Amino acid sequence: MNDTSPAAVNHYDPAAFEGLRFHAAVEAFRAGADSPRDYLERCLATITEREPSVKAWVVLNESAAREQADASTERWGRGQPLSPIDGMPIGIKDVLETKDMPTQYGCAAYAGNFPKRDNAAVWALRQAGAVVLGKTATTELAGPEPGPTTNPFNLGHTPGGSSSGSAAAVGARMIPACIATQSGSSLIRPASFNGNWGIKPSQGAINRGERQTASTTTHGVVAASVEDMWQVAIEIAKRAGGDPGWPALYGPATPPPARKPLMLAVMETEGWDRLDDAALAAFEQVLAQIEAQGVTVLRRSGDPLLERLEQALIGATALTTSILSREHLWAFRDVYEANPDRISARGKSFFIDRAQGLGAAGYEAALRERAAVKAAYADLGTRFDAVIAPASTGPAPEWLGDVPGEQPATWPTGDPVFGTPCSLLGAPSVNVPLMAVGGLPFGFQVMGQHGTDARVTAIARWLGETIAPVSHPAAQVR
Amino acid sequence: MNDTSPAAVNHYDPAAFEGLRFHAAVEAFRAGADSPRDYLERCLATITEREPSVKAWVVLNESAAREQADASTERWGRGQPLSPIDGMPIGIKDVLETKDMPTQYGCAAYAGNFPKRDNAAVWALRQAGAVVLGKTATTELAGPEPGPTTNPFNLGHTPGGSSSGSAAAVGARMIPACIATQSGSSLIRPASFNGNWGIKPSQGAINRGERQTASTTTHGVVAASVEDMWQVAIEIAKRAGGDPGWPALYGPATPPPARKPLMLAVMETEGWDRLDDAALAAFEQVLAQIEAQGVTVLRRSGDPLLERLEQALIGATALTTSILSREHLWAFRDVYEANPDRISARGKSFFIDRAQGLGAAGYEAALRERAAVKAAYADLGTRFDAVIAPASTGPAPEWLGDVPGEQPATWPTGDPVFGTPCSLLGAPSVNVPLMAVGGLPFGFQVMGQHGTDARVTAIARWLGETIAPVSHPAAQVR
Repeated sequence: MNDTSPAAVNHYDPAAFEGLRFHAAVEAFRAGADSPRDYLERCLATITEREPSVKAWVVLNESAAREQADASTERWGRGQPLSPIDGMPIGIKDVLETKDMPTQYGCAAYAGNFPKRDNAAVWALRQAGAVVLGKTATTELAGPEPGPTTNPFNLGHTPGGSSSGSAAAVGARMIPACIATQSGSSLIRPASFNGNWGIKPSQGAINRGERQTASTTTHGVVAASVEDMWQVAIEIAKRAGGDPGWPALYGPATPPPARKPLMLAVMETEGWDRLDDAALAAFEQVLAQIEAQGVTVLRRSGDPLLERLEQALIGATALTTSILSREHLWAFRDVYEANPDRISARGKSFFIDRAQGLGAAGYEAALRERAAVKAAYADLGTRFDAVIAPASTGPAPEWLGDVPGEQPATWPTGDPVFGTPCSLLGAPSVNVPLMAVGGLPFGFQVMGQHGTDARVTAIARWLGETIAPVSHPAAQVR
Repeated sequence: MNDTSPAAVNHYDPAAFEGLRFHAAVEAFRAGADSPRDYLERCLATITEREPSVKAWVVLNESAAREQADASTERWGRGQPLSPIDGMPIGIKDVLETKDMPTQYGCAAYAGNFPKRDNAAVWALRQAGAVVLGKTATTELAGPEPGPTTNPFNLGHTPGGSSSGSAAAVGARMIPACIATQSGSSLIRPASFNGNWGIKPSQGAINRGERQTASTTTHGVVAASVEDMWQVAIEIAKRAGGDPGWPALYGPATPPPARKPLMLAVMETEGWDRLDDAALAAFEQVLAQIEAQGVTVLRRSGDPLLERLEQALIGATALTTSILSREHLWAFRDVYEANPDRISARGKSFFIDRAQGLGAAGYEAALRERAAVKAAYADLGTRFDAVIAPASTGPAPEWLGDVPGEQPATWPTGDPVFGTPCSLLGAPSVNVPLMAVGGLPFGFQVMGQHGTDARVTAIARWLGETIAPVSHPAAQVR
């Protein structure tokens, strides 16, 4: 493969694309026809090939990973794996602490930061036998300032953010799954842009360990298969539980089987008008296929409570970002103060100026607005099985850097508008990678009520198994 | 004063005792008759005298404090203090990070730990002009293993825990106020044992900054006066707000005036049977005085909802401790693993063995039990103005260390039974220092519904101004 020029394109076809599926390999581990060590070596070979252009990793710990893979190989050989993900190579977004690798938050102010502690989820993954291969690139402090990562399907486009490296590593077939996080749109959007399955769990469902500082942040999983996605999430939750005071991710110990819904509700959000024609057409084709299966697809025009939710969601992205900015200010205040020159202008504007503009009273008003939006969502209850919505306003936009002399882009890693509602609402959401526009991935999400992660996953799986992938030619500006 | 022998006693008389009242000094600052620097020097003189026996401090930063006091003196001289607590010397419990002092959690495994960051509350105090004098001793990891501190009124007795140093420093008249914290009974009990006013605010009401890892932990304030107690709390909340996702402490910008309640409800808890005769008699005398003022005092026997709360509170201390143990395990797991020999046996048993015995499913069951207790409390609504209860089972018990050959004490810093309900319930509670038993302080607490911190403080203040202090001779074993 020769994709080192900035515009190199690996056309994405959702009908043909096959990422790494760890769960499909374990039978061969058991039979001795394959091993976690060999699996890891194949991952490393792909990384050697693609990493120079994709730049998904900030630290790779190959020697430790090989040791862990060998230990796993030995366990599978004995027929005693620690879990179904024993031996799975996994990448950790570089905002979770790891005892054997630095944690640098994609931020110059944290260069060399190395607390030598494992985040609760990382600890749980090790307990389950996973091979912790490295730290994946994040945008600066998980904010709007892009990191080094490119989109593996077109190097001139963004991979999305803030879980840029995690999503790109899975999209580039380097690894079967990565830990990602989301506070606004940081998992759902990059999953959409990189053809990943991705789960942003219910608020509090996966123990964030030391990362308790923002009220909408969750750990999540991006993966090349729904099976690996669920399995990683449940293995963590089984061992590390939920956040302090929250119930852990609830659901079966193995991936939930596909489940056909009776009714799905389309959520438009403010993003509907920003969908380009091709993205809208692709999503409508998915909806038409769903209806053809006998599933009722509700629209806001036909359901007053759904319309009420849409009204409540006006301004959701700004609201989510405002709340987050003030919470981030407390988490990173000392770093901002000590390193004024090592935070980007975009980061400062996003985190500091916005938070200071909001103030304490503005923050509390925002919390109350959020409570009202959540109430409108909770009112929907179980009227329908789940919400369905695009996961982004289209495929990954081009990003070659700010243009000198022009206003810097506000969202260089893509418009967060479709990803923020599930964070604002604390709701579980799963990205389903079934669409392509212009040869780039474009996902839709299935969102449920708090605590229904397993049901949402089962419905997403049914859609993945039932709906024919949809490919559209490149979007035209609407 | 010559109190360096282990049994030295400074008889406590609640009618005569006068701690340091910062709010009473500011008029003299304004007039130029006194200054924050002089105030600080008087505090330092008392510390020089009493610290060798009381051992309330683990770090004193006199030179920085003198600089801060001089800057404050200059501001008062200009008539431009930053806040009503500008120039107030304050101690910080050594579980909050401070950028200019180490943070060692009373634990050998954290010896020398120095993250050079300010906790959100410490940052807020500096913004308000407070003089951050030092770090006060805590029990090991704020658990049951005692620190070095003694009770300033009888050196052979415990100061309580885990906010041992904060409460003892105020009781020893070293300082007008300190930051304390509570997850179970860690503020209310030492406040009771050291004759402090103390507020354990509503859950989430004061931003804990990096300390978000336990669901019942709150920052709070112990002080020698209700005025300073409130003022410190509200100055922090005004600047640093509440925890992520929570409203900040709500109430007036200056101490709420005294407010006479119509009805108070006595909360007995499992601790009632453990009150010694003298403590019970003292508390009943307080209740009799309250009734004599025309306030209705409700008992469980006369109110079915109150009886229902008492039933729900059976096992509250064990439940609070169980939840806390598992949350602590995640917060400190790496430290436990890396330093197995630098955690006490009592700490291991409390934090590790209990958490592992509980497990993930046990933790979730405990959360649901907690929700049921909270519901029983919420049902009480505004039937009465506040709850009143002893703040401990009596005055501080003797503590001279474990007796070799005997079973180690479970609660060497005192029985937490009366302090845990407000943490379990997330409710605000204020300790009122109006009683003495055997020459040692013994407090009662006023507890309200979540968010009623100002009303609780106003009622506590009315009690402090209206009820005559009660002194009883030493308790006899019942």
